Amino acid sequence: MTKISSIDNNNPVFNPVKFIQREREASKLNIDQINTFLESTSERRDLTHRLINEITNDRILETDSSYYDLNKSQQREITANKIARLALYMEHDIKTARNNFENKNLIQDLQKNNGKEPLLSSSDFTIFDKRLSLIANIDPQLSTRVGVHLGLFGNCIKGNGTDEQITYWLQERGASMIRGIYGCFAMTELGHGSNVGQLQTTAIFNESNNTFTINTPNLTATKWWIGGAAHSATHSVVYARLIVKGKDYGVKTFVVPLRNTKTFQLETGVVIGDIGAKMGRDGIDNGWIQFNNVIIPKENLLCRFIQLTNQGNGDVTVKVQPQLDQISGYSALLSGRVNMVMDSFRFGSKFATIATRYAVGRQQFASNKDGKNSNQEEVQLINYPLHQYRIIPQLALVYLISPVAFKLMDTYYETLDELYRVSTAKDNNALVTVSAKLKNLFISSASLKATNTWFVAQLIDELRQTCGGHGYSQYNAFGKGYNDWVVQCTWEGDNTVLSLTSAKSILKKFGDAAQKGKFDSKLDGDEFGYLDPSFIAEVYTNQVTADISDDSNLESFIQVWAILLVKSLVHIGKALKKNNDIDSLSKLLVQISRFHAIYLMLKTFHEKLENDKESHITDEVTKATMWNIFRLFSVYYIDKYSGEFLQLKLFKADDISNVIQPKLFKLMAIIRTDCIALADAFELPDNMLNAPIGFFDGDIYHNYFNEVTKNNPQETNGAGIPPYYMALTSMLSRE
Amino acid sequence: MTKISSIDNNNPVFNPVKFIQREREASKLNIDQINTFLESTSERRDLTHRLINEITNDRILETDSSYYDLNKSQQREITANKIARLALYMEHDIKTARNNFENKNLIQDLQKNNGKEPLLSSSDFTIFDKRLSLIANIDPQLSTRVGVHLGLFGNCIKGNGTDEQITYWLQERGASMIRGIYGCFAMTELGHGSNVGQLQTTAIFNESNNTFTINTPNLTATKWWIGGAAHSATHSVVYARLIVKGKDYGVKTFVVPLRNTKTFQLETGVVIGDIGAKMGRDGIDNGWIQFNNVIIPKENLLCRFIQLTNQGNGDVTVKVQPQLDQISGYSALLSGRVNMVMDSFRFGSKFATIATRYAVGRQQFASNKDGKNSNQEEVQLINYPLHQYRIIPQLALVYLISPVAFKLMDTYYETLDELYRVSTAKDNNALVTVSAKLKNLFISSASLKATNTWFVAQLIDELRQTCGGHGYSQYNAFGKGYNDWVVQCTWEGDNTVLSLTSAKSILKKFGDAAQKGKFDSKLDGDEFGYLDPSFIAEVYTNQVTADISDDSNLESFIQVWAILLVKSLVHIGKALKKNNDIDSLSKLLVQISRFHAIYLMLKTFHEKLENDKESHITDEVTKATMWNIFRLFSVYYIDKYSGEFLQLKLFKADDISNVIQPKLFKLMAIIRTDCIALADAFELPDNMLNAPIGFFDGDIYHNYFNEVTKNNPQETNGAGIPPYYMALTSMLSRE
Repeated sequence: MTKISSIDNNNPVFNPVKFIQREREASKLNIDQINTFLESTSERRDLTHRLINEITNDRILETDSSYYDLNKSQQREITANKIARLALYMEHDIKTARNNFENKNLIQDLQKNNGKEPLLSSSDFTIFDKRLSLIANIDPQLSTRVGVHLGLFGNCIKGNGTDEQITYWLQERGASMIRGIYGCFAMTELGHGSNVGQLQTTAIFNESNNTFTINTPNLTATKWWIGGAAHSATHSVVYARLIVKGKDYGVKTFVVPLRNTKTFQLETGVVIGDIGAKMGRDGIDNGWIQFNNVIIPKENLLCRFIQLTNQGNGDVTVKVQPQLDQISGYSALLSGRVNMVMDSFRFGSKFATIATRYAVGRQQFASNKDGKNSNQEEVQLINYPLHQYRIIPQLALVYLISPVAFKLMDTYYETLDELYRVSTAKDNNALVTVSAKLKNLFISSASLKATNTWFVAQLIDELRQTCGGHGYSQYNAFGKGYNDWVVQCTWEGDNTVLSLTSAKSILKKFGDAAQKGKFDSKLDGDEFGYLDPSFIAEVYTNQVTADISDDSNLESFIQVWAILLVKSLVHIGKALKKNNDIDSLSKLLVQISRFHAIYLMLKTFHEKLENDKESHITDEVTKATMWNIFRLFSVYYIDKYSGEFLQLKLFKADDISNVIQPKLFKLMAIIRTDCIALADAFELPDNMLNAPIGFFDGDIYHNYFNEVTKNNPQETNGAGIPPYYMALTSMLSRE
Repeated sequence: MTKISSIDNNNPVFNPVKFIQREREASKLNIDQINTFLESTSERRDLTHRLINEITNDRILETDSSYYDLNKSQQREITANKIARLALYMEHDIKTARNNFENKNLIQDLQKNNGKEPLLSSSDFTIFDKRLSLIANIDPQLSTRVGVHLGLFGNCIKGNGTDEQITYWLQERGASMIRGIYGCFAMTELGHGSNVGQLQTTAIFNESNNTFTINTPNLTATKWWIGGAAHSATHSVVYARLIVKGKDYGVKTFVVPLRNTKTFQLETGVVIGDIGAKMGRDGIDNGWIQFNNVIIPKENLLCRFIQLTNQGNGDVTVKVQPQLDQISGYSALLSGRVNMVMDSFRFGSKFATIATRYAVGRQQFASNKDGKNSNQEEVQLINYPLHQYRIIPQLALVYLISPVAFKLMDTYYETLDELYRVSTAKDNNALVTVSAKLKNLFISSASLKATNTWFVAQLIDELRQTCGGHGYSQYNAFGKGYNDWVVQCTWEGDNTVLSLTSAKSILKKFGDAAQKGKFDSKLDGDEFGYLDPSFIAEVYTNQVTADISDDSNLESFIQVWAILLVKSLVHIGKALKKNNDIDSLSKLLVQISRFHAIYLMLKTFHEKLENDKESHITDEVTKATMWNIFRLFSVYYIDKYSGEFLQLKLFKADDISNVIQPKLFKLMAIIRTDCIALADAFELPDNMLNAPIGFFDGDIYHNYFNEVTKNNPQETNGAGIPPYYMALTSMLSRE
C-alpha cells in the first residue's frame, strides 16, 4: 500500500492541530468549573466521568467507528449482548448505591424478598439510571432497548400497580434487575398513537373464573412499534379497554406474558411480527402484536387507582379514582420525557463539540482569492461571522439546556416519590397537592421535551451542514446521530401534541390569573412566574419593559420572554373570545409552549449561575463568559422570533437591526475566542464522540483518513477490482 | 399464521379508503390540466408518463419496498446491474430521439465516427436525460452514479474540451453511450471543497516528452468523495494545478485513466480506497484517490480555453482565455444545480403526495374526548388547522417549484448551446453576450438550487413528522428519502456558499443600478426586474406598495417580494458603507438569495398561469385553485419572514395578525378541500411513491401492514424465537 499520509507542518495550509491547540492554550476559562456547572454538582460530575470511563473502556459496551457499518441484524445481536453486559453493571450499581458488597447474595435476597434487605427504591437506581443516560449518548438504541424494559414497562407498573404488584413484578420476578422477565410496553396501536383514550384492544372480564380475555378486534388495533416485542420481551404491559359485564371502563393497563421465559416460545394466542427497517435505531427490535383470546389472571390488571371486586354471586364492582387514574395512565411516559431533556443536553454537547473543533481546524478561502498561490494561509471557518452564526448559538443552546435538564430530573424524582408515598398512605389531601404538582410537571416536561428535542434535531442538521461533505460521512456521527435522534420528536408524546397540551394548560392558568386573579404562587411561582396577576397587569398597562441594550441588567434577558408570553397569551385570549375555536389558534399555542421552554431555560440558568455555590463558578473571567452565553441565547432567539416580537410590539422595527442583531454578532465574536474551551468543557472523550473530525487532538485529516481506511481496507489483491466488475466490464465492452 | 387483517367497513373508526375516495370524487379540479401544467407541456407530459411506466415496470430497474432492507454492498451491486440496464435504454433513447431504428448499427457507427451519422448533440439525450431525472425520484443513488459519469465527467469534458476532445472522449471512446469507458469527477479534495482555486493536486508539464506528471503532494490533497472512484470508474477528470516550467497556472482539468477497461486493475501510481458508509446513497461507490507520479499525455489536458504549445526547443507557451476559463471550470457543476431544482420538484411531489393522503385518511381524537366511547368517529388529521399549516404550504411549494424548474432547464440548454456555438466559431463579441447570460444562469441556478434543496429538506422532515411514528418506518420512504436528499444541500456547491455568491452578484447589480443607473433590461429584465432603476427609485420614495389584502391584484403577491428585495439591498448597502465588511453581512446575503428565489418562483408561476396556452389550464375552477396556491405560497413565506418584512417596514405590526395570518389560514382551508386532487395531480404511481401509507387507493393500514409483513416474515418455526435468544435467556436466568 502506498497511501500518502504526510502533512507538512510547516506548510501554512492545513494545520488544524496548531489552531486547536493554540486556541485551547490561549483561553483563560476554567474548564473544571464549567464542567461542574454543566454536570450539576461535583458529586454528580465525578460519577459522570467514572461511568463514561467504564462504559467507553468496556470491551462489550464500547462503540467505535465499526458501529457505522453494522447492518440491522448485526446491530440487534450486538445490542442483545450489550444488554446482558449491562445487567451485570446494574447489580454492581445497586450494590454500590447501597454501599453493600458484603452481602454476596444481595441480588438474590432482594429477589426472594425474604425481609433480609429493604425493598428496592428509586435511590437504588440512581447510578444505573445515569449509566443508561450516558450510554444513550454513545449507543442510543441500546439505552432505548433497556429503557423500554425498565423505563416504560417498569414505570407503567410503578405508576399503575399496587405496592404488592410493584414488589411482585419488579423485585420478586426480577424485572428491575433485568432478571427472570424482560418487559415491553404495548400502548401504541397501528391506528392510534396520541389518542390513548381510544385504543381498541379489549380486555373482557370473565367473572366465572376471574380472568381477562385479551383480544385484538381488528387490524388497526394491532399493537404497533412495540420496542422489544419482536424478539426480546417475555412480558408486556398492555393498554386495553377494560370491559366488565359489557360496560366499557376505558383504557387500563394489564401485564400479559408473551413468551416462555426459558424457551422463548410465544404463548398461545400471541401473534408477533417484526416491524423491520426504521429510519434509525435499527438495533431495537420493534414489533407488532395481535392477541387472539389470550387469557390472563385478574391479578394482572394493574390496580393502584382502580378496584375490581368480584363477589362471586354475579356482583362485580369497579371503582376508579378518577383524578389519578388518568394521570397514572400517562405517568410511564413522564420518565421518558424527562430523560429526553437530559438527552438533548448530552446529544447536543456531542455534536457541538465535533462541529466547533472542525470549524476551528478547517480553513477555506484565503483573503486573496486569485487562486494562483497555493501556499497562502486560508481563513479558519470559525472566523467567518456567518459560520459563527451557524455554530456559536448552538453551543450556547446546549449550555442552556443543562441546568433545566437537571432541575427537571430532580423535580421528577421528588414528585414521584411524594406521589407513591401519599397514595400508599391514602392521604387524600396530600394527594390533591401532589396531583397539582404532577400536572405542572406534565406541562413543563412536555414543553421542554418538545422544544429541546426539536432544537437538537435542528442543531444536528445545521451543524452537519457546517462540516460540509465530511458531515455526510457516516463515520463523523451526524448521519446516524440524526436518524437516531429525530424519533424523539415523535415518540412518548408527539411534539406537536405535547406542545398543544402544555400550551392549553398554560392558557387555562393564564385565564384564571388574568380574569379571576387566581394565582397559587407557592405552586406556580417558580415555573409560571409570568402568570402572577400583578405582572400581567403591568404588561397590560405597558409598565414593564425589558432593556436588552443594557448588558448589566441580566434579568431583562429573561423578562423579555416573560412579557412576550403574556402578550401572546393576551393575543390568543382575544382571538378566542372572537371565534371560540381553540384549534384555529394552534399555531400560536405551539409558540407558547416554545416560549415557555425558552423562559424556563433562561430562568434556571440564571438562578444557577447567580449563586456561586450552585454554579461552582468562582473564576470571574469564566463567569463573565457564562453570562455572555446566557445573553447570546436570549438574543439569538429574539432575532429568530423577531416577527413575533415585532407583531406584539415589544420592539420597534429598527430595534432589531440597530440593537438586537449588532448585539448578537458582537456576543458571538466574543464567545468565539473561547469556543474550543467551551467545547472542551463538555469533557467528552473521543470514544464517546466517535467522530474523527471532532477528536480532541484536532488532527482532523489524519484521524478521519485513518477511520475511513480502517473500516474500508483496500482490496486485498491491491488492484481495486470491484466485487461486481463483471457487470461493469460486460456493459462497457458490449457490442 | 393467524394474523388479523380485517377492517370492519361499517365501523365508524378508521376508514381511510372512504375518506380519500370521497374527497377525490368531490373535487371538481381538472387533474389532467393540472398535470400538464406541472409537466410543462403536453409532449413533455406524455414522455414523462411513458418513461415512468417503463422504469417502474422494468424488472431490473423497479424499486419496491425490499429496497429499504438492502445493505451497502447489496445496494452497490444492484445499482451496478441497473446501470448496465440503463446503458441499453440509453441506446434506445438515442435511436428514438433520432427517430432512426433503421440503422441497426447506429450506436457503433456513432462510435466509429465514420461520417455516416451526424455527431451526437444534446438533443440526442433529451429523452435519456429525462429518464435519468425520473429515476432520481425512485432510486436517487442510481441516477447519481450515472449522473457522475454523464453529467460531471461528460460535462467537464464538454465544458473544457476542444471539439476534437469532446468527440474523442464522449463519442469515439463511447462515454456518452456508457460504453468503453466509465468516468468520475475528481474535483474535491480532503482539504478543499468549495475553494476550487486552492486545490493542491499537481500536474507538472514534462517538456521533454510532452506529458504531465500527476501527483498528490500530501494527505489533504487526496481526492475525496469521488463518486464511482471506489469501484466503477475507468477514467477520471482531475482538477489539478497546471505547472509549466515551475510556474503555477492555477487549477485546470485533465483526463486521467484509473483502471484498465477490461481487467479493471488499477493503473500504476493510482491508489484508490473506498469512502465507506454515508448518511445516504450508499449505492454510490464514493472513493478517494491518490496519485503517485502518474504520467498522462499532453492531449489529456482539456484545452478549450487554454493553449499549451511546446515548440520543442525549450520554448513552451501557455495562453488562457481568462473570461471563460474561470466559468468553464465550474460549468460541469451547472448541470447538476439545474437538475437539482427539477429534483426538488419531483422529490417534493412524492412526499407531498404521501403526507397529504395520510393526513386525509388518518383520524385521531374525537370531538368528544371522554375516552369512554370507542365507536365515535374521529377527526381526520387534515381537518385540524395546525395540520393544514403543516401540509398545505408544502404542497403549494411543490407547485411553485415546477414552472421555475422547467424554465431554468430550458435556459440552461439554450445558453450552453449558444456557448458551444459561439466558442467554436470564435466569435468574440457573441462570447461576451453569452458569458453575461452564463453569469446570470449561475446566479439564478445557485439561488434556486440552494433555496429549493433547503426547502425540500425541510419539507421531507416536516411531512415525516406529520405521519407520526409511521413516518419513521423505513418502508414509508421518508427516512431514506431524507438521508438521500440532504446531500443536495452540500454537494456541487454548498448551499451557503452558493447563496453568498449569488447574493453578492445581485448586490453588485444593485449597486450598478442604484448608483450608476446601469440596467440592461434585455439581459436582466426578466430575472432581475426589481433592479430596474425606476423601480428602485419608487421603493426609495415609498411610491410603490403591495396590497396583499386585495386578492384580485395578483401581481401584488410578487411585488411584495420585489420591494422586500430592494429594501434589503438598500439596508445591506447602507451597512456596507459604514463598515465595508461584506462578511459581517453574510446572514443578510443568504436571505437575499432566498428572497430572489421566492420572487423568481412566483414570477414564473404567474407568467405561466396567466397565459392559457402556456398553462394548459382552461377550466375556471381549476384555475382559481391554482391562483389560490400562488397566493398561499406568497403569504406563507411572508408570515415565515414576518420579522424581515416588519423590520424593513413593508408592513405594520398589526398587519401580520390582522391581514397576513387570517388570509393564510383562509387560503389553507379553501385549498384543503381539494388537497387529494392536488396530490393526485402529480400522477405518481404507487411504485414510484414506494410508501404504502401514501398509495392511491388510500387503504393505508392494509397496505402498510402488508409491506411490513412481506419484508419481515414471521419466524419459520412460528414460535418467535429470536436469533439471539441464548444471549437473552442466559441473562434472564443468570444466578
